[in-house]
Amino acid sequence: MRKDIIKFKNPPSIVSYASVVGNKEHEGPFGDKYDLYDESDSFGMPTWEQSEGEMQRQALNLAMKKAKLKPENIDAIFAGDLINQCTSSSYGLLDFDIPYFGLYGACSTCAESLLLSAMAVSEGSFENCAAVTSSHNCSAERQFRFPLEYGSQRPPTAQWTATASGAFIVSSKGKGPYIVEAMGGMSTDMGIKDANNMGAAMAPAAISTLSRYFIKTNTKPTDYDKIITGDLGFEGYGIVMDIMEKQGYDMRPVYTDCGLVIYDREAQDMHSGGSGCGCSAALMAANFLDEIKKGILKDILFIGTGALLSQMSVQQGLSIPGVAHLLRIKGEL
Amino acid sequence: MRKDIIKFKNPPSIVSYASVVGNKEHEGPFGDKYDLYDESDSFGMPTWEQSEGEMQRQALNLAMKKAKLKPENIDAIFAGDLINQCTSSSYGLLDFDIPYFGLYGACSTCAESLLLSAMAVSEGSFENCAAVTSSHNCSAERQFRFPLEYGSQRPPTAQWTATASGAFIVSSKGKGPYIVEAMGGMSTDMGIKDANNMGAAMAPAAISTLSRYFIKTNTKPTDYDKIITGDLGFEGYGIVMDIMEKQGYDMRPVYTDCGLVIYDREAQDMHSGGSGCGCSAALMAANFLDEIKKGILKDILFIGTGALLSQMSVQQGLSIPGVAHLLRIKGEL
Repeated sequence: MRKDIIKFKNPPSIVSYASVVGNKEHEGPFGDKYDLYDESDSFGMPTWEQSEGEMQRQALNLAMKKAKLKPENIDAIFAGDLINQCTSSSYGLLDFDIPYFGLYGACSTCAESLLLSAMAVSEGSFENCAAVTSSHNCSAERQFRFPLEYGSQRPPTAQWTATASGAFIVSSKGKGPYIVEAMGGMSTDMGIKDANNMGAAMAPAAISTLSRYFIKTNTKPTDYDKIITGDLGFEGYGIVMDIMEKQGYDMRPVYTDCGLVIYDREAQDMHSGGSGCGCSAALMAANFLDEIKKGILKDILFIGTGALLSQMSVQQGLSIPGVAHLLRIKGEL
Repeated sequence: MRKDIIKFKNPPSIVSYASVVGNKEHEGPFGDKYDLYDESDSFGMPTWEQSEGEMQRQALNLAMKKAKLKPENIDAIFAGDLINQCTSSSYGLLDFDIPYFGLYGACSTCAESLLLSAMAVSEGSFENCAAVTSSHNCSAERQFRFPLEYGSQRPPTAQWTATASGAFIVSSKGKGPYIVEAMGGMSTDMGIKDANNMGAAMAPAAISTLSRYFIKTNTKPTDYDKIITGDLGFEGYGIVMDIMEKQGYDMRPVYTDCGLVIYDREAQDMHSGGSGCGCSAALMAANFLDEIKKGILKDILFIGTGALLSQMSVQQGLSIPGVAHLLRIKGEL
């Protein structure tokens, strides 16, 4: 039968991490915690796609610097983004001369890249891997919905694709935070067709992964200090809370979502919250991993959530599948 | 320093594989060897993107059947394709209820998915993984170049995106063919900007990976029965042969390329040959792995090659990076 949960025999450490964000993210509740930001969102590049790639480059550079590692010490990069053919990652990380594995997990890419990095280093294939991902509001909106210049009105269920990037160095040696377990998500499609309601499209995948995990490990939500989903926003957060409660799991005391908290609901009014690969990547790097290091959090579940739609699949009338990968991260072994 | 080569301690077996192709591929030199084909290229689906997804579904179904495995025996799928946001894989493989890791390696995805599957099963994280990939001429041409109905003339350097899919089951237990070593490729950009000359854009990546491998292992091309690149076609094949010769490596006796041989150069006149993720996947599944099983080939190098462009990166005037991942596959240990 299937090995649902990977229990890492030699749990890898996330030895360093860095976050790079845009202006709206910097104005948000975690503004002071990000490593770098650019008020103009352009990062000195002539196109938004290249701005996004540049954010990845800066994030990886900074993460390597913090770990005192050079490109020749990194065995592989696992990276991806939302842009067609993942060009932000391909072009942004081109100059490092590090073996490059491209991923497409939509907004779950941060969790996917951490999971595959952990798998690669925990068992001896590699020593140090980099997990890098990003999203950019301007490149994503024009690709998936409308160019910003069109000025289209966003419905209340719409989320704001975060202009954000996160890079993580995952190593076989280190002093934590440790990735102790992981579980890959199954694609789940509950028939949602509204590309302006990603939270509802992704929530079933998060629910599927969480229930599977709790059943297999015989644990409950409050066994963990915090359960963090990627970017379900207000819509998806509520759905996860409600459905999990109906399944007998009280998520209330420990549950949060990166899309829910990345912007200030009152002051910034980003409708249903934030989304994008970079949303969870930047918040993990800027806040949650630090809280683990400081001992504020000791044992968390991070569930990256992704919606596997394309502009064409929406135009062709297909519903939107979601996927959610889980990592259990601990401060001490 | 970097661990360039992964030497699998418990080399995983490719216990089964299946190929599904379109009409032109069936009319080509390996026509009788593919498992399934559809003369109409549509596989009963209403859109080309869904036709491509259906090819992946059929290929994986067949590969599982050959290995006498059911979806619940497969720990994870590693899959990807060329379509924006990899929707052919996401939608085509949705119904299997198997944990799903999406990849984007362009035409190198077959090698990338085999490499990550091998990594996952060789060290105990998983027991059985599925590596699945595809390309479809009609979905790829309209996305990257022109819709077929436009009837645009193709230059002699252009390759024909193969309508093809391949699925592989990689297991920790089995009797071969064994994946004994692997090496991830670095992105390489030599300034090629012509989206109708993918061979020239990808050849530098293949050369980079091959030279690195020969230097690190202190071997030469003729130490292997065959060296197979993914889809460089006539252009890229010639470049690899020439540059490798200048570096002191005589590839001539053992070198072939899936894009070079998938169509009949005389009878079919596909210009520079075949390309696409499915090109190498279908030929590995239909021919080369069988030749290993029969003992015709004993020790080969398979180098999946991918061009990491998008329609937008071309429109924005960027050159085309390539990437090439290497696998060493042996019939016996």
